[in-house]
Amino acid sequence: MQLGVKTDPKNQWLLTENKLNTRQLGKAEALMCSGNGYMGIRATTEERYVGERRDMFIAGSFDSFADEVAELPNLPDVVGMQIEVNGHQLNLNQGEVSDYQRQINLKNGLLTRTFKWTIDDQSYQFKFERFVSMDNLHLVVSRVTVTALTTKIIVKIKSGIDGQQTNSGTQHLVEGAKRLFDDHYMQLLTKTGESNINFAFSTCHNFFDELSNPVQMKQQMELGRRQIFCKYQAELEQTESLVMVKYNTIVTDRDRDYDGQQLEDLQQFGLRELKTSSEQSFETLLSHSEAAWQERVWKYGKVAIKSSDSNDQVAINFARYQLAISTPEHDNRMNIAAKGLTGEGYKGHAFWDTEIFMLPYYIFTKPIVAKKLIEYRYLGLAGAHRKASDNQYEGAQFPWEAAWPSDGESTPVWGAADIVTGKAMKIWSGFIEQHITSDVAFGALEYIHATGDQQFALDKVNEIILDTAKFWQSRLEYNSTADQYEIHDVIGPDEYKEHANNNSFTNYTAQWTIQTAIQITDDLKANHPDKYHELDQKLNLKTTYDKWIACVDKVYLLKPNAQGIIPQDDTYLSKKTIDLSKYRNAEHVGGIFDDYNLDQVNQLQVTKQADVLLLLYLFEQKFDAQEKRLNWDYYEPKTTHDSSLSLSTHAILAADLGMQQTAYEFFQRACQIDLGPDMQSSDDGTHSASLGGIWNATVFGFGGVRLLGDQLRIEPHLPANWSQLSFDIYWQQQKVHIEIQANEFTVSTIDATRPISFNSQNQTYQLAQNESVTISLANMEGTLL
Amino acid sequence: MQLGVKTDPKNQWLLTENKLNTRQLGKAEALMCSGNGYMGIRATTEERYVGERRDMFIAGSFDSFADEVAELPNLPDVVGMQIEVNGHQLNLNQGEVSDYQRQINLKNGLLTRTFKWTIDDQSYQFKFERFVSMDNLHLVVSRVTVTALTTKIIVKIKSGIDGQQTNSGTQHLVEGAKRLFDDHYMQLLTKTGESNINFAFSTCHNFFDELSNPVQMKQQMELGRRQIFCKYQAELEQTESLVMVKYNTIVTDRDRDYDGQQLEDLQQFGLRELKTSSEQSFETLLSHSEAAWQERVWKYGKVAIKSSDSNDQVAINFARYQLAISTPEHDNRMNIAAKGLTGEGYKGHAFWDTEIFMLPYYIFTKPIVAKKLIEYRYLGLAGAHRKASDNQYEGAQFPWEAAWPSDGESTPVWGAADIVTGKAMKIWSGFIEQHITSDVAFGALEYIHATGDQQFALDKVNEIILDTAKFWQSRLEYNSTADQYEIHDVIGPDEYKEHANNNSFTNYTAQWTIQTAIQITDDLKANHPDKYHELDQKLNLKTTYDKWIACVDKVYLLKPNAQGIIPQDDTYLSKKTIDLSKYRNAEHVGGIFDDYNLDQVNQLQVTKQADVLLLLYLFEQKFDAQEKRLNWDYYEPKTTHDSSLSLSTHAILAADLGMQQTAYEFFQRACQIDLGPDMQSSDDGTHSASLGGIWNATVFGFGGVRLLGDQLRIEPHLPANWSQLSFDIYWQQQKVHIEIQANEFTVSTIDATRPISFNSQNQTYQLAQNESVTISLANMEGTLL
Repeated sequence: MQLGVKTDPKNQWLLTENKLNTRQLGKAEALMCSGNGYMGIRATTEERYVGERRDMFIAGSFDSFADEVAELPNLPDVVGMQIEVNGHQLNLNQGEVSDYQRQINLKNGLLTRTFKWTIDDQSYQFKFERFVSMDNLHLVVSRVTVTALTTKIIVKIKSGIDGQQTNSGTQHLVEGAKRLFDDHYMQLLTKTGESNINFAFSTCHNFFDELSNPVQMKQQMELGRRQIFCKYQAELEQTESLVMVKYNTIVTDRDRDYDGQQLEDLQQFGLRELKTSSEQSFETLLSHSEAAWQERVWKYGKVAIKSSDSNDQVAINFARYQLAISTPEHDNRMNIAAKGLTGEGYKGHAFWDTEIFMLPYYIFTKPIVAKKLIEYRYLGLAGAHRKASDNQYEGAQFPWEAAWPSDGESTPVWGAADIVTGKAMKIWSGFIEQHITSDVAFGALEYIHATGDQQFALDKVNEIILDTAKFWQSRLEYNSTADQYEIHDVIGPDEYKEHANNNSFTNYTAQWTIQTAIQITDDLKANHPDKYHELDQKLNLKTTYDKWIACVDKVYLLKPNAQGIIPQDDTYLSKKTIDLSKYRNAEHVGGIFDDYNLDQVNQLQVTKQADVLLLLYLFEQKFDAQEKRLNWDYYEPKTTHDSSLSLSTHAILAADLGMQQTAYEFFQRACQIDLGPDMQSSDDGTHSASLGGIWNATVFGFGGVRLLGDQLRIEPHLPANWSQLSFDIYWQQQKVHIEIQANEFTVSTIDATRPISFNSQNQTYQLAQNESVTISLANMEGTLL
Repeated sequence: MQLGVKTDPKNQWLLTENKLNTRQLGKAEALMCSGNGYMGIRATTEERYVGERRDMFIAGSFDSFADEVAELPNLPDVVGMQIEVNGHQLNLNQGEVSDYQRQINLKNGLLTRTFKWTIDDQSYQFKFERFVSMDNLHLVVSRVTVTALTTKIIVKIKSGIDGQQTNSGTQHLVEGAKRLFDDHYMQLLTKTGESNINFAFSTCHNFFDELSNPVQMKQQMELGRRQIFCKYQAELEQTESLVMVKYNTIVTDRDRDYDGQQLEDLQQFGLRELKTSSEQSFETLLSHSEAAWQERVWKYGKVAIKSSDSNDQVAINFARYQLAISTPEHDNRMNIAAKGLTGEGYKGHAFWDTEIFMLPYYIFTKPIVAKKLIEYRYLGLAGAHRKASDNQYEGAQFPWEAAWPSDGESTPVWGAADIVTGKAMKIWSGFIEQHITSDVAFGALEYIHATGDQQFALDKVNEIILDTAKFWQSRLEYNSTADQYEIHDVIGPDEYKEHANNNSFTNYTAQWTIQTAIQITDDLKANHPDKYHELDQKLNLKTTYDKWIACVDKVYLLKPNAQGIIPQDDTYLSKKTIDLSKYRNAEHVGGIFDDYNLDQVNQLQVTKQADVLLLLYLFEQKFDAQEKRLNWDYYEPKTTHDSSLSLSTHAILAADLGMQQTAYEFFQRACQIDLGPDMQSSDDGTHSASLGGIWNATVFGFGGVRLLGDQLRIEPHLPANWSQLSFDIYWQQQKVHIEIQANEFTVSTIDATRPISFNSQNQTYQLAQNESVTISLANMEGTLL
């Protein structure tokens, strides 16, 4: 964390930048992004610089341009301003800048930027503050303070709403009305071109002197193409300040809290929100937002790390902050995008990242959010049916990339042209990266196991699993010679192997899905005949069940070879190996493509990310410690970790295997994916799966928490430089506090209404309300090996 | 010309900027724009700056986004490059810049930029050269020279084709194939979203050392959304240079010289052009372009001014350069846009500006181009019929704003919202600024009179005039009380009077159109009965003729009042007058709107631009000198000259009236519209009509050339500080050279094949081949008063 964005050893809630790097703006823009799950606004500076990405997204507002797949449109900018002091337009590439600091307070989301600017022998003090309210999802507030330091000055500010934003040149928003109400409230209406989502952006500015007395300002309106601005001008005596508070509300006709019909209703909705908010001071609104951060985010799943490296605590705070600003808790028609709401990368789409990397965080810290994320998949069943049937399969085949639930498969079909042959290259993930369907089923069942929410299982999760099992049964290919069911031509988690046959991860999870579906069907028949009947009507369960029974034990699971290595797929182990150290030690990922193309990499024992190892982690009960260790030793050195999903999985597995130091190294590398010195890594947005992975590595890895079937297991493995790790989890709807030291750990229930049980070191413990148990870790080392 | 772009007293073909003003980039971008009538590329710098307008347009490539009217799309950028020296990305807001010079050579279109850049204690010399070929309309060539001045250096260049351009955020181009051919030639295909015009952009880079020896460079491809780049890297020893020549070709499937069918043909077309061109050196291609400038532009209509102010010659050179780069001589389906191909302003549309302000230049200097501009209107008849019939009229009502000929009326219907009431304001010009229809007829007949091209009159011009007269007849409103035909609810040339009744300019030109149509019909009947029959079939001439006869003498022409003032319309003279000095002396136009809104201005005797005075100039034979002088004295002081069409008309009229000093002041002010110190005036593009007006003021004003009916008249009025004005014109397809001094002027025929005649001082002169006549100007002063 040397370059660019820095942490503060004394306050693990702060990320700070001490110099504006106008060449590499993306890092701070993404890491210091503001948001509340409804919207995300990158930490773009008020003044413009070449290379900035002035992104603002609203969750779920998907639109597609021409034949392209849907993406989140980059919405009108309410952050940018033109500020001029004594004729000099603010531009930190000119003049002298001192005491520069940009800082995000992860605790309350307040973004602050302060500096002194000297130009033409005169100095000016600037302070910019901004937050997206966690209290009112539609609200963005900023405050600008300009102080005359060395002379009397004229300040000019042009500020408003700028709808000329595009997604790298792709336009989603169509011109709408622009107007000024009551000579004070600006409004810009716009809508998406294809999906017809209407937006109302409303903005006003209030002015104050340095003593917070209101200042009346003459305003001049300026309209442009999809733009509305007001211009203001003030004279300040030396030492005087001008304070401008800018209030913005953003509403759409897709919002759950909007109940209007006409565009005029939406206009009024936005204006109402603006008028109410702008009657309150910046401080009051910030305090409301801060309280909401506490109430909605921080009171759930607290994590405290006592480490010799304070960055570990920063990383977990950062991860939780980022997940909070990117998770649309307010609406189950939306999911968490691979880059959250922090950048254009992956177009705002959700992947298996949700179920495998982020869902566990919510299952164990705020299950109501996990439930909504699963409801999103349930709403996506129609699209999953369409995908299956388009591919000549049955049941529900979930989209590799998911946008609006009914959109179905949203992976771009064609990618960049092969630069030599000139032919467009097909993106295969949408067709053959099929494990997503198992992942969705797996995640949904994890939620049921951890919460015991049987009603939700009956309502939705059972159906998801049965429907996906129906897909898998139709997908299996019978090999009559071997009398087994195989799955050919897939991409497994290791995306460097396109068109693999019998990828172990895929085959195992397919079988697991069918097995689970059989159990669910048996249970439904026995205990919920009405529900069974209902689902039979929907899914043709009777016939399907027989097909499951006929195939389930014949799904081909590749056997370990003589050395105990589970083959990644039919041919992986027979491929050539090469020295990967050059790429594994490189500062940037993907370096292997400097020397090999994808076809060539496909012929090598080179793995992009945990594949067999992910299987061993997710299905840990199926494999013993020795198998895990052998496969770790085999696969990890062949892995480039070019996916941000790889490191945290390795951290957990290493911790499981008692390799705490290795685990800690992987954990820290995972934290560096966004927080590290690579100034480009977050340009397209932060890495949601990796952020979930930071929590997973902490709680599942070092904390040793694991959901084994429907059992909770806790086997901590603290790294040497952590003297304590404590965290809260929800288990069976009860809050559990876990505090781990080097030699013992304590599990306590908090306000529990019924007893809970967990396993540790092969013992089962039961805890009643407000009870604690402390367990010695003396003999932990080596227990798994 | 103090600020920004400067002229050179020693070389009137150069415009120079000695400091890059990164806050006000628009001036130099527009004034130094490159082009060839097929395409225009603003003089944007290679490195990017906030506020730049990286515009490139191809004439006629109109597209409309959503419900908006068609506009010229901003095409992929081939000018931008990222250049890095020793880790410093080129950015002149950082480090020290010395010996900066950007210069356009108006003679050959070569744009050059040179400077020394010092950063981090090391210095680098940069030279950028660029031209759009006048020889091969599809070709753009640039050359970059980087020299290591103080140390050995590493240079990195990223360059290619960037299709992420928009029109202020509005996207017209849809993603197409991107590929690399022969490991050297990049290509990006794209097409417009609605009009389906396909484009192929092809680019390659060749490298050389300072001795012009080829240098082999390793390249690395980078693809983005609608982007294709190559990255290069070189090491230079101190004093060594790297020279990169970038060749670009742009072709579209609308091009007249494209005869393919499939997209692949277009691809091949672009590649072929690129391969052929890139086999030649920068110097060779530049020399071909320079020769084409001579052959296509400069050999026609030479103008030489001996003035005490060398800027006068610069202005005429600049005007002719700008007209040349913006006039689509190659294709009669296109016209000259109000901002040429130099900016987004007015969306690439053509207005009456063509007929009244630019067409005369071509009629008298290169009639073949004038003919094509008239053919464009002929091709637009279908759209003009549609407009007439949409408005319940007959005949051809030409569009106020014209895009592709078949588009018909292309004026946006709704403008910005009224910022107070919030209601969108209707743009009335497309509906009621109806004099455009007369202007088209007027311009077309001027061409016939000046050239004697009777065949073209028979083929097209007669039909245009008859069809427009048919419109006017249907448009007239009979006032039975007065037994006269009136025209209510129009906008005249003075756009500050919306909904005027009986605007004099409109009524006079409507009557003129009908009178002319009657004469043409009489002539056709007598001399071309077949053609008469053909047009009767088309236009129902028999009936229409009777209607013309019935109304023509009853068209209401407002009588001068007791003071000899021709009323601008029914009510103008009864409106209030105010002191306009504040607005007339302001540096920026439109200042009156700081104090009044349009409704209020409508109630004042305030005129935006020549209206009655334009009538007096265009129909000068209808009005005597005294009438002109009285009306000048009345109207000019009430005119804000807020339109760029105003000053040159006033210059001509002042010259006609013998007020040479006043005329010269207006001439110089007209030149300042683009070349003057207002750094924002050309942001949206240069002012084509004003550029035409500079020539008009020179040749028609000071040169005293005038087309009176079908007679040529020459009555020079040189301003005091011009010792000589000489120019060539075409008259009746013969080249005529005119040389004017203070006391006499000489008219010579050059290579004439038949005699020509002209009038001067009420005498008629006849000149045979290679004959001259010198006429004394001793008694000129006061002859007109």
